[in-house]
Amino acid sequence: MTEYDLPPAARHPYTWGNLETPGHLPEAAVGAMAALGAVPAPGSVAVPDVRVPDRTLPAEAAEDLAKALGAEHVSSAHDVRVEHTRGFSSPDLLKLRAGDASDAPDAVVFPGSHEDVVAVLEICTRHRVAVVPFAGGTSVVGGLTPVRTGFAGVVTLDLRRLDRLVSVDQVSRTAVLEAGLRAVTAERLLAEHGLTLGHFPQSFEMASIGGFAAARSAGQASAGYGRFDDMVVGLTLATPRGTVTLGTAPKSAAGPDLRQLVLGSEGAFGVITSVTVRVRPVPAVRVFEAWNFPSFTEGAAALRTLAQDGPLPTVLRLSDEMETAVNLSDPSAALTSPGSGGCQVITGYEGAEAAVTATRAGVTERFLALGAQSQGTDSGEKWRTGRFRGPYLRDPLLDAGALVETLETVTFWSNLEQLKTAVTEAVSGSLAEQGSPALVMCHISHVYETGASLYFTVVSKQLDDPLAQWAKAKEAANNAIRACGAAISHHHGVGTDHRETLARELGPIAVDMLRAVKAGVDPAGSSTPAS
Amino acid sequence: MTEYDLPPAARHPYTWGNLETPGHLPEAAVGAMAALGAVPAPGSVAVPDVRVPDRTLPAEAAEDLAKALGAEHVSSAHDVRVEHTRGFSSPDLLKLRAGDASDAPDAVVFPGSHEDVVAVLEICTRHRVAVVPFAGGTSVVGGLTPVRTGFAGVVTLDLRRLDRLVSVDQVSRTAVLEAGLRAVTAERLLAEHGLTLGHFPQSFEMASIGGFAAARSAGQASAGYGRFDDMVVGLTLATPRGTVTLGTAPKSAAGPDLRQLVLGSEGAFGVITSVTVRVRPVPAVRVFEAWNFPSFTEGAAALRTLAQDGPLPTVLRLSDEMETAVNLSDPSAALTSPGSGGCQVITGYEGAEAAVTATRAGVTERFLALGAQSQGTDSGEKWRTGRFRGPYLRDPLLDAGALVETLETVTFWSNLEQLKTAVTEAVSGSLAEQGSPALVMCHISHVYETGASLYFTVVSKQLDDPLAQWAKAKEAANNAIRACGAAISHHHGVGTDHRETLARELGPIAVDMLRAVKAGVDPAGSSTPAS
Repeated sequence: MTEYDLPPAARHPYTWGNLETPGHLPEAAVGAMAALGAVPAPGSVAVPDVRVPDRTLPAEAAEDLAKALGAEHVSSAHDVRVEHTRGFSSPDLLKLRAGDASDAPDAVVFPGSHEDVVAVLEICTRHRVAVVPFAGGTSVVGGLTPVRTGFAGVVTLDLRRLDRLVSVDQVSRTAVLEAGLRAVTAERLLAEHGLTLGHFPQSFEMASIGGFAAARSAGQASAGYGRFDDMVVGLTLATPRGTVTLGTAPKSAAGPDLRQLVLGSEGAFGVITSVTVRVRPVPAVRVFEAWNFPSFTEGAAALRTLAQDGPLPTVLRLSDEMETAVNLSDPSAALTSPGSGGCQVITGYEGAEAAVTATRAGVTERFLALGAQSQGTDSGEKWRTGRFRGPYLRDPLLDAGALVETLETVTFWSNLEQLKTAVTEAVSGSLAEQGSPALVMCHISHVYETGASLYFTVVSKQLDDPLAQWAKAKEAANNAIRACGAAISHHHGVGTDHRETLARELGPIAVDMLRAVKAGVDPAGSSTPAS
Repeated sequence: MTEYDLPPAARHPYTWGNLETPGHLPEAAVGAMAALGAVPAPGSVAVPDVRVPDRTLPAEAAEDLAKALGAEHVSSAHDVRVEHTRGFSSPDLLKLRAGDASDAPDAVVFPGSHEDVVAVLEICTRHRVAVVPFAGGTSVVGGLTPVRTGFAGVVTLDLRRLDRLVSVDQVSRTAVLEAGLRAVTAERLLAEHGLTLGHFPQSFEMASIGGFAAARSAGQASAGYGRFDDMVVGLTLATPRGTVTLGTAPKSAAGPDLRQLVLGSEGAFGVITSVTVRVRPVPAVRVFEAWNFPSFTEGAAALRTLAQDGPLPTVLRLSDEMETAVNLSDPSAALTSPGSGGCQVITGYEGAEAAVTATRAGVTERFLALGAQSQGTDSGEKWRTGRFRGPYLRDPLLDAGALVETLETVTFWSNLEQLKTAVTEAVSGSLAEQGSPALVMCHISHVYETGASLYFTVVSKQLDDPLAQWAKAKEAANNAIRACGAAISHHHGVGTDHRETLARELGPIAVDMLRAVKAGVDPAGSSTPAS
């Protein structure tokens, strides 16, 4: 049983879907955009007309790369450079739509093996060329934006040729996956062995295994399958100095867990070329059910109860009043419950039939006791089938003149509502002050015994300079997160967008610990732009 | 409900129990010792007669320490130095029994706060004095053995005055514990709030919270409560450069997880002065039940099934044929089952009554289907009440002329039996070759989805030079572990004993990553002997 048989979509540099099948804006959203005062944005600059910077890559570096990989695996073609410009944050898209590819690399290399990756790093280090690791290209935090200062040039290292399921260990329930494997393909290959990763972030259709590891991804089924950093039991890292192989056991007391130093390092310490991951049998049964709680506070308390005392579903999410209302206003939502208002909870159960039945019965008993109403499995199933559609909506929203962006954070339970209020007020306040009142929606999508994540979606109208507009709102959000003592990211990562806030979160000595590691593996500082 | 109301025993430097209540050797063990050819060892040198090295601590350093902490919190008394000499491995005990305290520190300091610890590190760094962090003092891998070379002196930093439960967050289910808190005291203080850590290693009666964190301890209930490194959500680290505070959220994507770099660092990057840990309600119900499987292979397969597909008890352990036979030969074991042979499994269930009943029913169904026989709850309860008694037996065994020691490792399931065979053969072979045939017993005490730990207990007769005798056997074990690709320690840690093998396990670049971190926080290299 598998449902992941979509071919990876042909990538367009600044549209989530294929250009041939653009995202469609529901009627209700059109109305909401008008209410916010959005006016249709000017059309996007076509790829051939996008402006890329002059190439500065030294000729000798280009020759060495071509010699090492074969000339056919090095490209400086205009469309390839544009395709590898930045990631998929709204500012990234807005820049490309306006024709600005000033962050384009000089060249893109396509290594075919771990050894090729080591060779690329060695060559680039020697020529003082910055290297940007790239696979799915879905960073929404500036993780693919190079810093050119101090470098002779910038090369993007595209891992797409490292796309094998290398091996499966059915006894240990592990699999070795190469970093360039797209998640969709990984699931399809694992399904041939009756296995699944169970890792389904919203970027599932585009993102890669290596990116999940490098940026500490968390999938929508994290309550059941864990975060990606929970799944990784081993990894291979290419550094400018050579190869590091980590993970001799599931867990050990053999010193610090260096896997957890490389996970989340986002290329700063080298390039993850493969990971050994814990896998599970493809579930026999999947059931999704929606519920409604009277308020976010009551819903959050219910999620906390499940996270701390069980039973825990595979998927567990809570939308706040605003997000629930906006979803209800979507005519395609077709909720079976006549109720309106309140806060929607999505529960998902995957596994053997008996376990699914028992867990669902336990959750039902708890939820009913806590005042929730079931909205049925049709609503749950509707969420499941639509769960990767969000990013497709952004393209037509940007066309319609909306500023739409997401941000996320995580904290301990006792701090959660304070954090939600602070971030909501910071973002709303910043945008209102700029003359662009915003809708700020929020959900909990990842729960732990001691805390939970908060994911915010912000919709406003674009002002004349939407980049500056969002930068102010985002800075206000970052400051609110920091003031609350929460983490700057739950699963989007650091990139260039969160670099300064992370430094404040860690403090100077911890930052120096990271810098020291980087200096140890990459004395020339070339293996990443985000150093 | 709590059962942890033992006062921490008055510490004797080389006897696990109080001298007043020495461990008692069962009759069967006396017979086994005779069969191995052991003859009673010479008596131990008394503490006043143990030889300590000349003190080399510079007078200015001693003055600065006394000024910073108060003279009453700095001691160079003979018995205090002996008390802080090394840890509790059998070689450590054998050396002290023979009167050798050549690894004694020059002085012991007793800081009263995090700020005091920072001050001690700053002073010692300035005077180029090595610092050995010390709390429970239970290391069995040379974690308290200083390297004097290159230092002006050695100071042991005893954390016993940092013994507070600082705060409890009932909503987030977290507690802040100071590092010098003994585990017994921590459980007693948490129980006043209805909470438990659930962390019960065999060293429970002596060990400390800081040691659990610094050395990645795993307790006997790890299947249910997790390892200590799973419990830590935050920590405060005193470094020679100042304070590092980590842990803004349960999990995040805000870069590498630096908590997992400090956990297991064993003082190399500084001194952990407090941790924020996930806690749970004191369980309403506890049930322990023993089972018997026909063979280790079948027992291990059953444990794997539970670890991978559930349901998972709170405690789950499997003794091999030899360990099961030796336990049965102990007349105090009083097993209710008439069966002999096979391999014993201990299961423990803790939690709410309904959950315990459901999990136990699920395990029973699986175990019966897999050919196991229940030995009943009396046998299980007997294991529970005796579970901290092992170390008390070692003192009379050493008196009787036995060489008794443990070692442990961890690997993936598909490698487990190969590893067990290789280590058993390596240790048995080395000791037989030296003319001291050994009993080698093994159990699985910690399971994961992808693998499990192996814990070996070795009993032989002492030869004339038991230190050299064990060093050879241990080296053979280390080489076997490395040849199998397993981790050099599951929960004992690295210390000085595993330093070289860990370096081989990690490879040179990963070792340099660790060295780089150390250089970053401790430019003078003073904060630990095991750098």
